Amino acid sequence: MRLTNVLRKIALLGFIWAGAALVLTAPGLAQEKAQDPLPSWNDGPAKQAIVSFVQKVTDKSNPAYVPPEDRIATFDQDGTLWVEHPIYAQSMFALDRVHELAPRHPEWKTKQPFKAVLGNDRAAMAKFTEGDWAQILGVTLAGMTNEAFLKISQEWLAHAKHPRFKRLYTELVYLPMLEVMQYLRHNGFKTYIVTGFGQEFVRVYGERVYGVPPEQVVGSSISTKYAYQDGKPVLMRLPKVFFNDNFAGKAIGINLFIGKRPLAAFGNSTGDRQMLEYTGAGDGSRLMMLVLHDDPKREYAYGPAEGLPDTKVGTFSQALLGEAKKRNWVIISMKNDWNKIFAWE
Amino acid sequence: MRLTNVLRKIALLGFIWAGAALVLTAPGLAQEKAQDPLPSWNDGPAKQAIVSFVQKVTDKSNPAYVPPEDRIATFDQDGTLWVEHPIYAQSMFALDRVHELAPRHPEWKTKQPFKAVLGNDRAAMAKFTEGDWAQILGVTLAGMTNEAFLKISQEWLAHAKHPRFKRLYTELVYLPMLEVMQYLRHNGFKTYIVTGFGQEFVRVYGERVYGVPPEQVVGSSISTKYAYQDGKPVLMRLPKVFFNDNFAGKAIGINLFIGKRPLAAFGNSTGDRQMLEYTGAGDGSRLMMLVLHDDPKREYAYGPAEGLPDTKVGTFSQALLGEAKKRNWVIISMKNDWNKIFAWE
Repeated sequence: MRLTNVLRKIALLGFIWAGAALVLTAPGLAQEKAQDPLPSWNDGPAKQAIVSFVQKVTDKSNPAYVPPEDRIATFDQDGTLWVEHPIYAQSMFALDRVHELAPRHPEWKTKQPFKAVLGNDRAAMAKFTEGDWAQILGVTLAGMTNEAFLKISQEWLAHAKHPRFKRLYTELVYLPMLEVMQYLRHNGFKTYIVTGFGQEFVRVYGERVYGVPPEQVVGSSISTKYAYQDGKPVLMRLPKVFFNDNFAGKAIGINLFIGKRPLAAFGNSTGDRQMLEYTGAGDGSRLMMLVLHDDPKREYAYGPAEGLPDTKVGTFSQALLGEAKKRNWVIISMKNDWNKIFAWE
Repeated sequence: MRLTNVLRKIALLGFIWAGAALVLTAPGLAQEKAQDPLPSWNDGPAKQAIVSFVQKVTDKSNPAYVPPEDRIATFDQDGTLWVEHPIYAQSMFALDRVHELAPRHPEWKTKQPFKAVLGNDRAAMAKFTEGDWAQILGVTLAGMTNEAFLKISQEWLAHAKHPRFKRLYTELVYLPMLEVMQYLRHNGFKTYIVTGFGQEFVRVYGERVYGVPPEQVVGSSISTKYAYQDGKPVLMRLPKVFFNDNFAGKAIGINLFIGKRPLAAFGNSTGDRQMLEYTGAGDGSRLMMLVLHDDPKREYAYGPAEGLPDTKVGTFSQALLGEAKKRNWVIISMKNDWNKIFAWE
């Protein structure tokens, strides 16, 4: 069953239960709980910012009212909607592919960066340059039809497990963020994922996991070539970057794919800075939020901005924190703002 | 008032009138007329193909049934949704811009291709190479922010008139095709424009004229750069092609922007061949249609495929006709299939 359907069923059951409770026991409290669109959020400035923003832009009598067709919300994925540590899921996918393809490439045993991957040399992998990653992505994610790529992505997602949580990556989505997405959609918003990672990869599970259909996934992409296989047209994936949807690329990608400026944008790292900046430069009421990873017990703690350990995966720099404070972007503290992080907790 | 609103009002009035007629006069006929979703289409194989396709894919008991989220229809614009002769509207826009910008570029008086444009040298313009057009588009459509471009496009569309019809270009849309778009949307389809011309240009009027919002316009684009003006982020248009959404580019663009294979595709020239081919390569029931311009009295007649005059604007080649016949793509004859071409007729 699709996660969105599950969530809908849960919402329905909650409603029925609340209805019964209204008659039988403590009506006021039960009703309030059933009506809370963000139950995994603690009361506080972050939750308050979301709710008051939505009330403002959907209230026709409010000067900040925005018609439904312009209610666009964009979400970064890694570190904003699901776990990105110790390493991005799609990077893990590429590394797993290197191991899988190795028998066909005996030369990799002595050739970098493949040698480091095959030898699980973490120190060497931590120092991989963009060129190294481009080589790895080129051989693992290109050289096949788009349909073949979707298939191997699906297979990987169906069995690969996170090293710490021992769960599928698609189970490592943040329940509070799913609630925000649903809450926005119930209020007429279109929710988009705007990811620095591969557009096609996220499209494999975007609908099932986030309720976001393929046409609402904006991401990085490689070039494709129109070709024929057995007389049928196919799109062949080429080892050549077509669009880099990160940093300034996120604002460019939003204009390219959506053609409208978001009303709300959610991120967690320096790669999301321009997306939030571009969102905030629009008229009227806008909502810009950054997830801060400050919960080592339930998830991870990183981001030098708040004195947490430095990291190359999901960097939250001092400069980003400075801009956030200057422009009134709202920081979401995983530790303080979320009473639940994962649905299975 | 938006055209879609006008059409909605007309539909509503028709319904009310039909309702009154049901009570007062000839109920059967009036009801049939009110229920015809394609009143500008003559009965014939083209209309029949559209109606039976829609009935099939929306009927849950039919093996060809497709759920609403996968009901995607793509439409070429020039020559399929609106008039493209004697020259594409956006080319006319670029040529008008050359005249407008000329006082700031005295060197253009002696420099090709600008000299030919300023001297209205039709013979020279007819021979323009892709390089000539790239130069013209570079100086007329780039070198400004995206917002500035949308503004000048809007201004041009508000006053520029077609040389033969003496009407705004946005009035030269084909009513029968608007009916098809509406009919598909009423049946749960998402309608996309997939144009070889500029994505941003079509987005200016897509919603108003076709009922297609910006995020459902796929087209060619130039690169943009994230920059700052008065401390605010802007997207600067660069004189560099980013994506060419024509020929194979249409299939590539559909996958890139939509991520789903269309169920139905409409075109009129060789630039649409791969879009129809890619659509037809999907499983189940698909609808591929080509508009043939064979009505010199009400519109134009061109397309060597049917013995009509040859043209570089909207070429319908013998090869395209051959593939259409081989793959059972349906030809729409403007002369025979449409009892009305324009809403103002």
